[in-house]
Amino acid sequence: MSKIRPLSGFPELLPAQRAVEREVIASLSRTFELHGFANIETRVVEPIERLAKGGEIDKEIYVLQRIAADADAKAELGLHFDLTVPFARYVLEHAGHLEFPFRRFQVQPAWRGERPQEGRYRQFTQADVDVVGRDELPFHHDVEVMSVMVDALARLPIPRVSFQFNNRKLIQGFYRGLGIADVTEAIRVIDKLDKLPADEVARMLVERVGATSEQAQRCLELATIRVEDASFVEQVRALGVTDELLDQGLEELAAVVEGCRAVAGDRVGVEANLRIARGLDYYTGTVVEIFMEGYERLKSVGGGGRYDALASDGRTTYPGVGVSFGVSRTIVPLIADGVLAGSRAVPSAVLVALNTEDDREASTRVAAALRSREIACEVAPAPAKFGKQIRLAERRGIPFVWFVQDDSTHQVKDIRTGEQVDADPATWTPPEADLRPTIISTASTTSHPEENQ
Amino acid sequence: MSKIRPLSGFPELLPAQRAVEREVIASLSRTFELHGFANIETRVVEPIERLAKGGEIDKEIYVLQRIAADADAKAELGLHFDLTVPFARYVLEHAGHLEFPFRRFQVQPAWRGERPQEGRYRQFTQADVDVVGRDELPFHHDVEVMSVMVDALARLPIPRVSFQFNNRKLIQGFYRGLGIADVTEAIRVIDKLDKLPADEVARMLVERVGATSEQAQRCLELATIRVEDASFVEQVRALGVTDELLDQGLEELAAVVEGCRAVAGDRVGVEANLRIARGLDYYTGTVVEIFMEGYERLKSVGGGGRYDALASDGRTTYPGVGVSFGVSRTIVPLIADGVLAGSRAVPSAVLVALNTEDDREASTRVAAALRSREIACEVAPAPAKFGKQIRLAERRGIPFVWFVQDDSTHQVKDIRTGEQVDADPATWTPPEADLRPTIISTASTTSHPEENQ
Repeated sequence: MSKIRPLSGFPELLPAQRAVEREVIASLSRTFELHGFANIETRVVEPIERLAKGGEIDKEIYVLQRIAADADAKAELGLHFDLTVPFARYVLEHAGHLEFPFRRFQVQPAWRGERPQEGRYRQFTQADVDVVGRDELPFHHDVEVMSVMVDALARLPIPRVSFQFNNRKLIQGFYRGLGIADVTEAIRVIDKLDKLPADEVARMLVERVGATSEQAQRCLELATIRVEDASFVEQVRALGVTDELLDQGLEELAAVVEGCRAVAGDRVGVEANLRIARGLDYYTGTVVEIFMEGYERLKSVGGGGRYDALASDGRTTYPGVGVSFGVSRTIVPLIADGVLAGSRAVPSAVLVALNTEDDREASTRVAAALRSREIACEVAPAPAKFGKQIRLAERRGIPFVWFVQDDSTHQVKDIRTGEQVDADPATWTPPEADLRPTIISTASTTSHPEENQ
Repeated sequence: MSKIRPLSGFPELLPAQRAVEREVIASLSRTFELHGFANIETRVVEPIERLAKGGEIDKEIYVLQRIAADADAKAELGLHFDLTVPFARYVLEHAGHLEFPFRRFQVQPAWRGERPQEGRYRQFTQADVDVVGRDELPFHHDVEVMSVMVDALARLPIPRVSFQFNNRKLIQGFYRGLGIADVTEAIRVIDKLDKLPADEVARMLVERVGATSEQAQRCLELATIRVEDASFVEQVRALGVTDELLDQGLEELAAVVEGCRAVAGDRVGVEANLRIARGLDYYTGTVVEIFMEGYERLKSVGGGGRYDALASDGRTTYPGVGVSFGVSRTIVPLIADGVLAGSRAVPSAVLVALNTEDDREASTRVAAALRSREIACEVAPAPAKFGKQIRLAERRGIPFVWFVQDDSTHQVKDIRTGEQVDADPATWTPPEADLRPTIISTASTTSHPEENQ
């Protein structure tokens, strides 16, 4: 047996850190539910042919085989690498039992055999929210789904995030109106603005896409537009390109930006950023990437968009719009940096002290009385000296120690202040803030419910 | 692309069914937390050498490999087949950061490539609760952990379950006191009482274990003792065997049975059943198997016990005691049989109706006002005739439809009774029972909080 050591790319959290992750997931889930999204959980495996579609991701797929399988048996199953592929398959498989538009959220791990680095793990948890229609899905769902994620992230005690929106119709319509023949290739080139200087990209547009230098210039001008409201509409119009699809894209993007601004508050930025393209494969309208302030090195911490054919069984097509948030990608680095911490490693608000081992039953009765009123607690493991029992509570972050004396004179001590008072197990209640582990966040001075002061 | 079809052994739940599973997991988790157990989540993969220990389970392990791996590359990782192996590894890996005794619960899927059947799946969710000590772990934790699971299952709206306890010290001490040399083999034979008639088992004890027929008879007599209280102590004593380990086992088993009876209430049975052996590998004291009334065909729906060496790194040994509950094994058959159902497929308590598409903003404002008071709701997808909007709510199980008239004369309709009243989005609240999807259970006439009447 080899020595125990961490597996690179498979981060694990200590109990107080896991409390942070659970609170984050509970908060996201609660927001999704308030907006009427139902939770589903899909199996973690899919047929390999459904996972591997010839994209970059294919070589990162983990395939699965029973250890007892024949050496030459062909593996048929792989672990999903996102929550979109399994969701699309779930919709097709269960369509007869679902109501459309179908609104669902999903919080599950996914797996990718990529090189591990900060924010990129081989096992990572994502939170996805999507609306899927049958045959058609009105545009207003784009505004709705994006607003839901804005609302959800605004409630998390993380650094400020920024939603950067664009629209594929806008880009395609602009390029088409400009007279560029190979719109897809043009988008692919413009996508390199991240890594290459603008004049280099312009030269590539001329060489690869056959654009004139005038056209290339306009493409670059479009890509540099980035504003926090709908003023991009005028800026695009000023570039003098007209196209029906462009008009539709402008209108949609303006509606998404304004709809999201309405719910964003101070803690979330909303921008139209006309450089965002978000891959080339299946997005057909709204696209979004989410970035976190101070963590630009993680690249996007979430993203999504509109796809006119999330799934199709040949007869019926299911258009969708959705957005995904990288829970592990965000939380693991924030915990590592000390931006987020759990207030304690245990759920217990109270340690019920033990006088002697023979008194365990009396202490257990007190614990049961507290639990019957939803106060989490544990009985001391051993009848050590009280000073030692208090230090045990201290090490675990348990704020109160209960001393069982006789039925009429119990006492409870707040070990942070040292204050000790008479208490009745049938009525005493800790302050609301001490009832459960909370997230201690240094992300912001804005107060919000998840934060523990 | 092959046609979509279910994968045998990988059951998936529809949204209303998933609501049942989520409520069950939330209820279990809440009980574990009230008892001071911290949640952890381990990665799903372990080194194969840590999973495969030469047992029956080995051939069911799923191994994992990157699709791009060389054809002759040796697979090094497998999916865990339970939550005990990863927990033991977690304790060893993170021991320096944990407080002992370490109390944890874990609710995660596990994978076994076995032949699928009712209650047995290739991917299944388990809920485990354990206490682990460093070097030593006092016996009272056996009583504690078993009581916690009794408390947790007593709160679920499932058919009555029965905890059947035994103690390995009791069996071993009895056999030793009886003069049987190969105690381990004797236990293995007695374990066959499930499948073989008693006289057959007696003959095997004589032939394989070298017992006299008198000894074999005593072994069978011990194995038939099954009572709901501590009266088994006298029954065992009446068999006339004396042994120090037997005494200790009797005392421990009596304490576990009486401790669990004290919290079991009407919904959980607690028995001493001296035939339970629970495998042969690592249990050293308390053992338990959990059965569900009317579902004896599933065999046990949970089990666990005491292990003096959950983990060891050569220098330090970590004894533990724990019990596992098969969430999928229990819930999936109960849902299939209609014993458990979700009250609705969506979290929404209210559908906010839409007059015209131009009025979407007004309806969205009402929805936001309801959400700000924790009332889950959704806006109608299209401005259909009100009758059609009401039928949409009906199909989704949403109990209330909100009609936006003008700011002063909103109305809300309970579509179950048809009652329609004036309402203010800033103050109206649905009955508590309608706020969230609940579990509808036909398992019992006993009322409990999870049940929807």
